[in-house]
Amino acid sequence: MNPDRDTIAALATPVGTSAVAVVRASGPACRDLAAQLARQSVVPRRAVYCDYLGCGGALVDDVLLTYFQGPHSYTGEDSLEISCHGNPFIAQRIVEDLLARGCRSAQAGEFTQRAFLNGRLDLSQAEAVMDVIRARSERALNSAQRQLRGALGARMEAMIERLVSLLARVEAYIDFPEEDLPPEDRGWLEGEIERLGSETRQLRATSRYGDILRDGLKTVIVGRTNAGKSSLLNRLVGSERAIVSAEPGTTRDFIEECIVVGPHCLRLIDTAGFNTEATGVERLGIERTRKLAERADLVLRVIDITRWEDVAGDLAEYADEPATMIVVCNKADLATPLQRQGAVAAGACVVSAATGEGLDDLSGAIARFADGFKPRDNEDEIAINARHAEALARAQEGLAAAGDKLRSGVAVELVASDLREVLAAYGDIGGRIDNERVLDSLFASFCIGK
Amino acid sequence: MNPDRDTIAALATPVGTSAVAVVRASGPACRDLAAQLARQSVVPRRAVYCDYLGCGGALVDDVLLTYFQGPHSYTGEDSLEISCHGNPFIAQRIVEDLLARGCRSAQAGEFTQRAFLNGRLDLSQAEAVMDVIRARSERALNSAQRQLRGALGARMEAMIERLVSLLARVEAYIDFPEEDLPPEDRGWLEGEIERLGSETRQLRATSRYGDILRDGLKTVIVGRTNAGKSSLLNRLVGSERAIVSAEPGTTRDFIEECIVVGPHCLRLIDTAGFNTEATGVERLGIERTRKLAERADLVLRVIDITRWEDVAGDLAEYADEPATMIVVCNKADLATPLQRQGAVAAGACVVSAATGEGLDDLSGAIARFADGFKPRDNEDEIAINARHAEALARAQEGLAAAGDKLRSGVAVELVASDLREVLAAYGDIGGRIDNERVLDSLFASFCIGK
Repeated sequence: MNPDRDTIAALATPVGTSAVAVVRASGPACRDLAAQLARQSVVPRRAVYCDYLGCGGALVDDVLLTYFQGPHSYTGEDSLEISCHGNPFIAQRIVEDLLARGCRSAQAGEFTQRAFLNGRLDLSQAEAVMDVIRARSERALNSAQRQLRGALGARMEAMIERLVSLLARVEAYIDFPEEDLPPEDRGWLEGEIERLGSETRQLRATSRYGDILRDGLKTVIVGRTNAGKSSLLNRLVGSERAIVSAEPGTTRDFIEECIVVGPHCLRLIDTAGFNTEATGVERLGIERTRKLAERADLVLRVIDITRWEDVAGDLAEYADEPATMIVVCNKADLATPLQRQGAVAAGACVVSAATGEGLDDLSGAIARFADGFKPRDNEDEIAINARHAEALARAQEGLAAAGDKLRSGVAVELVASDLREVLAAYGDIGGRIDNERVLDSLFASFCIGK
Repeated sequence: MNPDRDTIAALATPVGTSAVAVVRASGPACRDLAAQLARQSVVPRRAVYCDYLGCGGALVDDVLLTYFQGPHSYTGEDSLEISCHGNPFIAQRIVEDLLARGCRSAQAGEFTQRAFLNGRLDLSQAEAVMDVIRARSERALNSAQRQLRGALGARMEAMIERLVSLLARVEAYIDFPEEDLPPEDRGWLEGEIERLGSETRQLRATSRYGDILRDGLKTVIVGRTNAGKSSLLNRLVGSERAIVSAEPGTTRDFIEECIVVGPHCLRLIDTAGFNTEATGVERLGIERTRKLAERADLVLRVIDITRWEDVAGDLAEYADEPATMIVVCNKADLATPLQRQGAVAAGACVVSAATGEGLDDLSGAIARFADGFKPRDNEDEIAINARHAEALARAQEGLAAAGDKLRSGVAVELVASDLREVLAAYGDIGGRIDNERVLDSLFASFCIGK
């Protein structure tokens, strides 16, 4: 890859028949391309309506062409957006024509990679671009937008600044090895390393919330056959998504599907297991629920409230693991007042998939549950990803090692060496690394045209 | 529908995860919307990069916003294009926010309908918009582009102009009923009506070519089992589209599929019939081929050239219906020189699906065959659609009736009445009709957002 020489081009919108398709190009040839294609001088950011004539002079389409002058563009270099009719055949011909004019096909994520290489985004912001594109829930989108705007980068910069002044203090003593660290400095250093360690741990703790935002809240729905699990699911999603029937055993296998409930995405797991209790064993074993809960963030335990007297006893057994469970008493429209009373007293959500009663409460309970994974004191809504978590783990190790050495009176060079590891780890999050392979593999998971 | 008051909004790009999605709005509120959303005064056609904040102030996405001032816009009225991240969830939130700000959801084709109602396009051009979007071959695209640029409209205008002066001449005599039409005028009128009739007929004759461009060349591939029909098809399409195997009978049903061969689209029909000869009946009946040919524009008859001696006789029997048939001798790589010689002498395309030999020739032959449907003297590449054909048929009837009356000396009022019918029919093509229902049904077949 050579951002200084190549001009890249790709379709930026999904393939399909629609009103509009957008083809993008970025690189040094864009200025000339814009003038050639528009057959007039172009003003940056001003949309020009023109006929797109191919290299051979044949008309391809009438298009809107907008030229962006670097560095005031997405990639930070000269770029071009061509908006044509939403016909994949036309978009393909425009891309092919741009290739014939000397562009090359953009690889997945290459536009954003250029934005990063040109200093328009740090690496955590570049990652947030795909988080924004893939977000399917309000919370996921909000968090991705904050990261895109540099929330994580700013937090890391603040920590890096403190670490750098700490490191400077330590390294000052390396230059004067005959002097020992005065006790007051040693105390300050120890305290500061501890505080950074605690901040790093806090940040790292946002990782699970990050997973939940990016992949959805891993949710298992359990309950006896015919408790109305599928109908409840449909009501929650608001459309006839699952196959529902009053006959037991009609739910077909669908595994790991995402649905949006309120501001969150739920990733349903093991829904094929909906019917594993249809074998005559009437009571769902605690052991099985435990196993499912191990894989899940949330267990929705659906109970037929009209059989409250039979199942109420079960609930007590689960009392010691409420952490991942919401109990949902379904069929409230058919319940007796006594059954209702019992369910409410037991802290269950009382709902009716048939009438819709209580479903807003259940949605709210799920949202509160999911929001519970968001660490407190996290005003900038940071939710890190696996790569960040790995870097922060390295930083934590380095800080712990530095703290230990400092306390045991080891030579300050060794402390400095640990702290430099921490600095490198902090730097990795914003992309202060010079490893092309890491970058290529990161951007390869992007969309073409982004 | 009230184009003067409503502002309409819709997603203009396909739903999917991609780099970019475009939301469009059109109507009188767009100017204010642009200023509100950009939070600055906007210059027409200049892309403004800004945060899109929803009604409630929440950040939705960072977007590029371009305002188009009527009449210099697609619809001819103030409009707005909002380019956001290619996330359907974001695009939906932007559309919902525009609705909350007083826009309403655009119906299918409503943007183009407004362009028509605002006089930016005549009706034949408006129809061409969807032809451009749906075109999947070079020829179809070229023809649609010409129609979009007004080729058909211009042709109709010229004919209307001639008809109007003809009608003026006739009506002049209606005002003076005591005078009879002088013979020289009568002769000129008769000649002119004849000439218009002949032009109308010529234009109407482009209808089949129009069908071929819009729907694809209806093509039947016939041939004995194991002649290599599927392999040939795959080679033609250039990808492993059909399931191919050396075992007879492995082609699965696929009916009415479109493939692009050279500059044309082929609509394969009755490909499920690929194997109807696998029952031991070795020879494809002429009757069956005739029946298939009735439904098809083109019959591709595939022959295993290595069995040339067995099948050569068959070909003679088809000699009297070459109009719709191209004979393809496959497996040229396995043929003897004598077999090749025989096939070439019989005018067949000699190809090898295995090696690719002769396939360019076959593509060329198919293209020439399809181009044969394009009427000569059709430099503006007009290819009308069913609605135009219906209007032209009415015009032809009217002209014939007027000619008859003129020749039989009927009162000129009656001739004028016929000619006015012709004028209305001509006018229908460009949309000089005031029938909202017809328009609504026409635009309803469009894409949303177009």
